[in-house]
Amino acid sequence: MNMKKLLTFEDMGLVQWGVLNEEETGVYSAIALEEAFFTPFPETLLEFIRQGNDGLLALADALEQNEKEGAIEAKPLDTIRILAPIPHAERNIFCIGKNYTEHIVEFDKTTTPDIPKYPIIFTKATSSIIGPEDLINPHKNVTSELDYEGELAVIIGKSDSDIPISEAMDYVYGFTILNDVTARDLQRNHSQWFHGKSLDTFCPMGPYILLRDAAPDNFDVITKVNNEVRQDGSTGEFIFTIPQLITTISQGTTLQAGDIIATGTPSGVGVGFNPPRYLHSGDCVEISISDIGTLKNKVK
Amino acid sequence: MNMKKLLTFEDMGLVQWGVLNEEETGVYSAIALEEAFFTPFPETLLEFIRQGNDGLLALADALEQNEKEGAIEAKPLDTIRILAPIPHAERNIFCIGKNYTEHIVEFDKTTTPDIPKYPIIFTKATSSIIGPEDLINPHKNVTSELDYEGELAVIIGKSDSDIPISEAMDYVYGFTILNDVTARDLQRNHSQWFHGKSLDTFCPMGPYILLRDAAPDNFDVITKVNNEVRQDGSTGEFIFTIPQLITTISQGTTLQAGDIIATGTPSGVGVGFNPPRYLHSGDCVEISISDIGTLKNKVK
Repeated sequence: MNMKKLLTFEDMGLVQWGVLNEEETGVYSAIALEEAFFTPFPETLLEFIRQGNDGLLALADALEQNEKEGAIEAKPLDTIRILAPIPHAERNIFCIGKNYTEHIVEFDKTTTPDIPKYPIIFTKATSSIIGPEDLINPHKNVTSELDYEGELAVIIGKSDSDIPISEAMDYVYGFTILNDVTARDLQRNHSQWFHGKSLDTFCPMGPYILLRDAAPDNFDVITKVNNEVRQDGSTGEFIFTIPQLITTISQGTTLQAGDIIATGTPSGVGVGFNPPRYLHSGDCVEISISDIGTLKNKVK
Repeated sequence: MNMKKLLTFEDMGLVQWGVLNEEETGVYSAIALEEAFFTPFPETLLEFIRQGNDGLLALADALEQNEKEGAIEAKPLDTIRILAPIPHAERNIFCIGKNYTEHIVEFDKTTTPDIPKYPIIFTKATSSIIGPEDLINPHKNVTSELDYEGELAVIIGKSDSDIPISEAMDYVYGFTILNDVTARDLQRNHSQWFHGKSLDTFCPMGPYILLRDAAPDNFDVITKVNNEVRQDGSTGEFIFTIPQLITTISQGTTLQAGDIIATGTPSGVGVGFNPPRYLHSGDCVEISISDIGTLKNKVK
């Protein structure tokens, strides 16, 4: 079968990882493939990512064998709980600010938007990650300006620093969806953005990692709130491309396998409306990115 | 003996941790204490920090027994290599900007300095940590404005969010010294500070964690470059106190045992001079904080 999407999930209390079947109705778990074909696979998706191409080749072999022998069945998706692909936040979450011109305009309503000359790079706390369907905590005691930002996230596949732009795409393992949830009041008050973007549950991520070789050149990024389209952008509009981002971040800083780069958000965030349209308890945010899937989270 | 300072070190290729003897000439390793007194200790200092008071009580017991029986000798400091107390960067490094009024004035030379109303919180990449005596990489291909910032760092001792200010000091495990090395040009160009503060080797830390109960109310923070005093401040000058910082960061964000909060730097950094006095290859930066010790690193 054609191996396209990897995921971390919980089944009967056991956190594990696997690969989506072609029909996208079920998952072949690494544990089941290991037992059936005596191919050793690591316990977590992060460790598997660290194995790079060797891991992917072993996984493709096991899937091919299974296709011939039919040794194991895919577990239906409705019997498992999908988690964030890298749930324990062991790696950095790099985020890019102002990477779509129209998003800059919605913040800064002057006639000539201030396009950054260099990428704006900040981080979210590693403790803020949650999975698909998990609830976003509105933290009403500290913020009254809860906002969403639908983003394509790049998963780094191998470790290195000073990566040349011509080789940057070789360092991409795959892509996932990330909601860069933001407390706008904290973002503004604390001047640096980290704090307002790092509250617990402020980093929904998933459901799948789409492997690089299965990815399109550009992705459509669509965010709906309660079924109303709020953001509809294309990564073709990036001010800084993925290779530019990887090259810049890695200048002097060693990127590591499993590092996450959230590539910025298109226009249409809550603060961009007049008056602003922030999130409230019960709201449902769905971010769909072409070929990856949909990341859906309700506000508690 | 009076247990005051913990450290991570390497001896004969083995990374381990221990406690400094009273004369501060040697270290009792956790491994040796465990063997002598059948008290199990965890492998890393981070795991020991997670044990909180229980760990400290067990360690005090073992040291008391050793005092009576003289079962093991302290390893002389000159036979070991001291590492950063939390060397593998498993935890967040929160940093505070502009926490000393005179440091704000040296950046912003207007008559009324812009004192922040809320703490400025950013992070350094977890991959940037190095230990005492390790070399700072000047990264000449990406920066020509390499600067130092001597800082007191707080080590968090237990996990929680929404910590009330009256209880905040209970969450402090101890204190260490941190050099918030900064590429000023990158800090400026990229607008958010993370990137210019996160290059590999930009977070020297150590040599010891001074336990909270052994700490003074205020610390003197003195930075010398090539033996010339550049910074000479006291944490009594903080705009935001340690309890205020812990309370603010933990609002909505779960702090975890082993998290590091660098509390900001006094005036006297390189960029504050006219003309600026940046670091160059061969320069030696020594940060001394009363009761903790001295963190010394040369620029490669």
